[in-house]
Amino acid sequence: MEDVEVAPPGPLEIRVKVVSTSICRSDVTQWQSTAQPDLFPRIFGHEASGVVESVGEGVTEFQVGDHALTVFIGECMSCKHCVSGKSNMCQTLGLERKGVMHSDQTTRFSIGGKPVYHYCAVSSFSEYAVVHSGCAVKVSPTMPMDRICLLSCGASAGLGAAWNVADVSKGSSVVIFGLGTVGLSVAQGAKLRGASKIIGVDTNPDKQEKGKAFGVTDFINPAELNEPVQQVVKWLTDGGADYSFECVGDTGVVSTALQSCSDGWGLTVTLGVPKAKPEVSAHYGLLLSGRTLKGSLFGGWRPKSDIPLLVEKYANKEIQVDGLVTHDMPFSDINKALELMLQNRCLRCVIHMPKRQD
Amino acid sequence: MEDVEVAPPGPLEIRVKVVSTSICRSDVTQWQSTAQPDLFPRIFGHEASGVVESVGEGVTEFQVGDHALTVFIGECMSCKHCVSGKSNMCQTLGLERKGVMHSDQTTRFSIGGKPVYHYCAVSSFSEYAVVHSGCAVKVSPTMPMDRICLLSCGASAGLGAAWNVADVSKGSSVVIFGLGTVGLSVAQGAKLRGASKIIGVDTNPDKQEKGKAFGVTDFINPAELNEPVQQVVKWLTDGGADYSFECVGDTGVVSTALQSCSDGWGLTVTLGVPKAKPEVSAHYGLLLSGRTLKGSLFGGWRPKSDIPLLVEKYANKEIQVDGLVTHDMPFSDINKALELMLQNRCLRCVIHMPKRQD
Repeated sequence: MEDVEVAPPGPLEIRVKVVSTSICRSDVTQWQSTAQPDLFPRIFGHEASGVVESVGEGVTEFQVGDHALTVFIGECMSCKHCVSGKSNMCQTLGLERKGVMHSDQTTRFSIGGKPVYHYCAVSSFSEYAVVHSGCAVKVSPTMPMDRICLLSCGASAGLGAAWNVADVSKGSSVVIFGLGTVGLSVAQGAKLRGASKIIGVDTNPDKQEKGKAFGVTDFINPAELNEPVQQVVKWLTDGGADYSFECVGDTGVVSTALQSCSDGWGLTVTLGVPKAKPEVSAHYGLLLSGRTLKGSLFGGWRPKSDIPLLVEKYANKEIQVDGLVTHDMPFSDINKALELMLQNRCLRCVIHMPKRQD
Repeated sequence: MEDVEVAPPGPLEIRVKVVSTSICRSDVTQWQSTAQPDLFPRIFGHEASGVVESVGEGVTEFQVGDHALTVFIGECMSCKHCVSGKSNMCQTLGLERKGVMHSDQTTRFSIGGKPVYHYCAVSSFSEYAVVHSGCAVKVSPTMPMDRICLLSCGASAGLGAAWNVADVSKGSSVVIFGLGTVGLSVAQGAKLRGASKIIGVDTNPDKQEKGKAFGVTDFINPAELNEPVQQVVKWLTDGGADYSFECVGDTGVVSTALQSCSDGWGLTVTLGVPKAKPEVSAHYGLLLSGRTLKGSLFGGWRPKSDIPLLVEKYANKEIQVDGLVTHDMPFSDINKALELMLQNRCLRCVIHMPKRQD
């Protein structure tokens, strides 16, 4: 915990007083990664909600006091991808990997004049965060900030993978590798689409009960099997699932996911960000026999265009999010929360920021 | 060239007097493969047309004298895949890999009582071939046998990859790796769908002119570049093609094909059967950023249901096939034809079988 100076928002940026931030596996993966040593000190965190504290030049969409969700990929509404209507890979405000702001390639955080780097141009493990106005979504002040923050990444990523990317159909069979926040949200999405069989695969036996609450109909613990998991899935689904989802963040599981889905029409969606080995590989025959492998970033949602709809569904109790929160903790305990994530002992820990006004 | 005994057709089988057989790269790949040494002696060939010479018990669809195309994957019309309407991976008459007939797992060819193995349950490099009636398609006797034989594999595989598997849209951009019979047919399919840019990639400079005739608008010879081919494709397509097709049979090219298509919506279709390294691999980020990788076997066509439509399109001059034939040769010259294929000096060599009656 350190005191950090947070600069005022630049043009088209807003400064947000963070109210709640939940911890996503990607925060921990990047924190522990040795790939970008120059980008430390760095502030992680991207799944968050807050109140607009000040607005930069040219910002018309937000006013001071507005409630907002931050998002790790923005939507400029004007680039080729944003206007295409079929992509969330905004060319102006896409995934930021250099630890700086999109607009001027510098940081808004500093300690004694030295830069402190951003993460995904959000950095919500801070009382204040400066984000581009294109990387925030206005939400109703009636919504609970400490729950809808999950819609800014994990919960939405899973729902969108099932709805937008896979387009799961009624009566279909689904297998999900990894029942974390994302995997459980895929299960929820599949259930809401009317999938008839939703198989959850996880080495943690506690996920069996949790899975049921999100729609999982069959649970497989690979650690308890004497045969390959894909064989069991094929047996449960008469030849292979219609859809399989890799939500572990292990590229090695992608091949198993492909083998678990049906030839002829099976679709494997890969959502995970791998902790190691960035290469996905699979025998060509798995593809040639009619399978499809598709990636899903943020479930295909365009943040500004689509997230308000998910918040509305939450308000109407059409989707559940609260059950994904296993811990509520004050900001001062954030290191305990990171430890829980490292030990796979939580789904989402929600960090509640201090309420004091500066 | 050897004399081989060809047994009468078994139940639901037909014996065909082969009239024309063209040579597909897969014949040569399998011939040279050391993976199944026990399956020799073996008769290759699967892209063929012929006349029904005799029919086995229970065959009602064919009569002696009918003209037919042989197909390397069958359609039983009754298994889960055939009735699904969305798969050509028939569970009864799928790709045969053991060199025998589907029905009884034995061969119909022999020399002095010793079995001679089949290839894909067709084996058309023979004057007579026994095939399952579900692996043959009846065609009008008015059609030229020495040209429509290409519709039983290569030409259809390319057209179907563009139409069924990728579903190429009007005004889109396409890049095709490998301008052999299959790649040129993908180009034709894309052109007929109204693609506005069709980029052909081939290390053989002769393919530039040939490509034009099939719709290729831009030709890239990777051997003449100082930069990676995917960079040139991105430059030509303002960020990446909408569709890319791997028609080389080199799993290493799949990654290049993924890199050549656009993030957000790019689709890579892999059609080739690799001569080496069966593992397809790619950086997970290529998928996560919204790309899709899909396999295509026989272009997604269900042989019995769909091939008659392609023959009709050929008859109506809606598709061209003749331009894919570079050589017409008698059966006695088949080894010369195989040599041309090995040296990449042909598209399709059509082998004309002797006309004598036995």
